[in-house]
Amino acid sequence: MNASEMQGRTDVNTLGEFGLIEHLTREFPLRQPSTIKGIGDDAAVIENGDLCTVVSTDMLVEGIHFDLAYTPLKHLGYKSVVVNLSDIYAMNAFPKQITVSIAISNRYSVEALDELYAGIRAACDAYNVDLVGGDTTSSPRGMTICITAIGQCEKDLIVYRNGAKKGDLICVTGDLGAAYLGLQMLEREQRIWQDNPDLQPDLEGQKYAIGRQLKPEARRDLVEVFRKNGLKPTSMIDISDGMASEIFHICKQSGVGALIEEEGVPINQEAQLLALKFKLDPITCALNGGEDYELLFTIDPKDTDKVRFLPDIYIAGEILDAADGIKLNTKGGKLHDLKAQGWVHF
Amino acid sequence: MNASEMQGRTDVNTLGEFGLIEHLTREFPLRQPSTIKGIGDDAAVIENGDLCTVVSTDMLVEGIHFDLAYTPLKHLGYKSVVVNLSDIYAMNAFPKQITVSIAISNRYSVEALDELYAGIRAACDAYNVDLVGGDTTSSPRGMTICITAIGQCEKDLIVYRNGAKKGDLICVTGDLGAAYLGLQMLEREQRIWQDNPDLQPDLEGQKYAIGRQLKPEARRDLVEVFRKNGLKPTSMIDISDGMASEIFHICKQSGVGALIEEEGVPINQEAQLLALKFKLDPITCALNGGEDYELLFTIDPKDTDKVRFLPDIYIAGEILDAADGIKLNTKGGKLHDLKAQGWVHF
Repeated sequence: MNASEMQGRTDVNTLGEFGLIEHLTREFPLRQPSTIKGIGDDAAVIENGDLCTVVSTDMLVEGIHFDLAYTPLKHLGYKSVVVNLSDIYAMNAFPKQITVSIAISNRYSVEALDELYAGIRAACDAYNVDLVGGDTTSSPRGMTICITAIGQCEKDLIVYRNGAKKGDLICVTGDLGAAYLGLQMLEREQRIWQDNPDLQPDLEGQKYAIGRQLKPEARRDLVEVFRKNGLKPTSMIDISDGMASEIFHICKQSGVGALIEEEGVPINQEAQLLALKFKLDPITCALNGGEDYELLFTIDPKDTDKVRFLPDIYIAGEILDAADGIKLNTKGGKLHDLKAQGWVHF
Repeated sequence: MNASEMQGRTDVNTLGEFGLIEHLTREFPLRQPSTIKGIGDDAAVIENGDLCTVVSTDMLVEGIHFDLAYTPLKHLGYKSVVVNLSDIYAMNAFPKQITVSIAISNRYSVEALDELYAGIRAACDAYNVDLVGGDTTSSPRGMTICITAIGQCEKDLIVYRNGAKKGDLICVTGDLGAAYLGLQMLEREQRIWQDNPDLQPDLEGQKYAIGRQLKPEARRDLVEVFRKNGLKPTSMIDISDGMASEIFHICKQSGVGALIEEEGVPINQEAQLLALKFKLDPITCALNGGEDYELLFTIDPKDTDKVRFLPDIYIAGEILDAADGIKLNTKGGKLHDLKAQGWVHF
C-alpha cells in the first residue's frame, strides 16, 4: 500500500466508471495540433493531412468481462476484436489495423492461445483489418486482453456524439437485448451445471441470444451503406452499455433531450420470449442490456428517405430540447423519464 | 479449462516471449495497403498520405513488471508512458498522443490512482504528448496498465531495425546497466526490510541507479539532434531488454553480423561501483541489464562526423557480414561470441 492511500482513501466505486475516467483525466490538456478529439467519444481522432486516424482501445479482464467457463477462447478472441472495431465504425470510420496485447498466467497452454488467436484472426479476416503489433506478457493470475483499433476517415465525414440537433430522428440498427439475455442463459446453465455436473445444458431455442453474446458483429455493413447513400448521421455511438445509456451520452454531449418510442425499439422475437421466460421486461432488456454492438445514430429529418427503406434500421424516436429531458413513450401511451440504468425484475 | 488444452498442452514458457509472439502471429496476413510495417519492429507504421502514423503498445502487469512495495505510483505512471514513447523515438519518429488503459482491483483508492495519473501527466508534459483515450476497468486482483503511443513521421525518415549494412558503425546513447543495478538495489533493500522492518533503507550513493530504474527517460533529445544534423541512422532500436539482445534483433532483421568493442560500451561510474558491490561483472550488466531506454543505432561511416562530437553518443562497434557472427572484443583483447542473455554471477 502506498503512502497516499493511507492518508485519504476514496473507494474507486464511489465515482462509477465514467466518473472515474472524468476525474482522472480532467487535468490533461490537449496541446498537439494534430489532436482533433481526445477523450469522450467512441474513439480519438488524429489529423494527418486529409485523412484522420481514429483510435479506440478496450481492456478485457478475466473474471470481469469474460468467464472462460462458458466462453470458448476462439469466441473470446473474435469478440475482443469486434467490440473495438465497433467503436471505430461508430465514428463513421473504417478500421484498418489492430494491436493486441495479452497478459496470461502459465495455466494457459500454447494450444489455448492458438484458439484465442484463431478467433482474433477470424475477426481480422471478416473485417479486413491487419494485426500490426501488441505485447505478450505473463500475469500472476488470469488473462487480460487489451486491443487498440486504428481506423481511417476523411476529416469531414467523422461523426461525433455531440452533433444531434432538435428535430433529428433517432435511429437504431439491428435488434437489442438479445446479447444480455444470452448472458443470462449462459450464467443460468453454468449455475445448474455447477450444482449438477451430469445435466447437459439446455440451450435449444436460445441460439440467437447466445450467438449475440458470444460472437457479436460490428455494423460495418451500415457504415458502408451510409457512404454509398451519401448519408452522414448528425451523431453516432455504438451500443455497448445499453441503448438508454448511449442516448444519455448523445444528449449530454449534444446538449439536447430525446423522446424514445417504445414501439420503435427493435427486439428480436426469440429475445422477447427469452425475456419473459426469465421474468424480465423485454423493453428493459432492450434499453439497458448492453453488448449489442449495434449503432445508435441521429439524422437530419431531410435524410429520412435515405434510411426509411433500408433493412435493419429503425426510427426509434426524436431529439428534443434539453429542457424537455429524456423520455420514453410506452406502447400504452404513457410518458416516463428514461433511466440510464434501471433493471426491473418483476 | 478449455477443450483444446485437455488434448495437447504445450507450456507457454517453452517458446519464450519472442517465440510465442512469432508463433501466435505467424498466420496473420497484412492486407491493408496503408500497413507499411506490422509486427517485428519497435512500432507499427501506417501510411496516411505524406505522413506516417507510428504505433507502439506495451502492457505492464503488477507482480511481473512492477512491485508496488518499492515503486511509487507516480513513478510507475511516468515510466509506463516513457517506455512506450521510447519505442516511437526508436523509429526516428515523434510521439504525439497516448491512450492509457488500466485494470485495477478495488484495493486501489481514487487517491492512489491520482498519484498514478500525476505521473502519467508529468510524462505527457515532459514529452509534449496528449492523452487521448483509454479504458478504465476493474480487475479481480492487482493492476494492469496498457499504453499505446501514437507518433508521426515523414515516410522517408522512418528508421527500421532491418537497415544495418556491413561497415556501418554501431552507436549507443547514454550509459547502460544502471537501471538493472537500481533494480537489484531496490530488491535487496526490500528483502532486508521484510526481514527487519525497523531498518531504514540504505540507498545513499545509489541515487543514479535507482533513478534510472524508477524514472527512466526516453531519448527525444537525440532524435531531435538527428533531425537538426540531417542524420538518418541506417537502423535503430531502443534498449529495453539489454544491448546484447537488441544487437541480435538488428543483426537478425538486417541479415548481418556485429563486432562490439567492450571499451566502447558506456557504463556510468556509480553503476560500475554498484556492480562490483553486487559481485556482478559491469560489462555483463551493461550488455544484458535492460530497461535503460537508450537508443542503439547504426550509421553509414560517411556520417561519422555527424555523431563523433555529439555528447552522449558512443561508437561501440561495427556491423560485419552475417557469416562473421556477433562478437564481443573484450578490453583484454579476447574475442567472444556475444550472448543475448548470459548472466554471470561470479
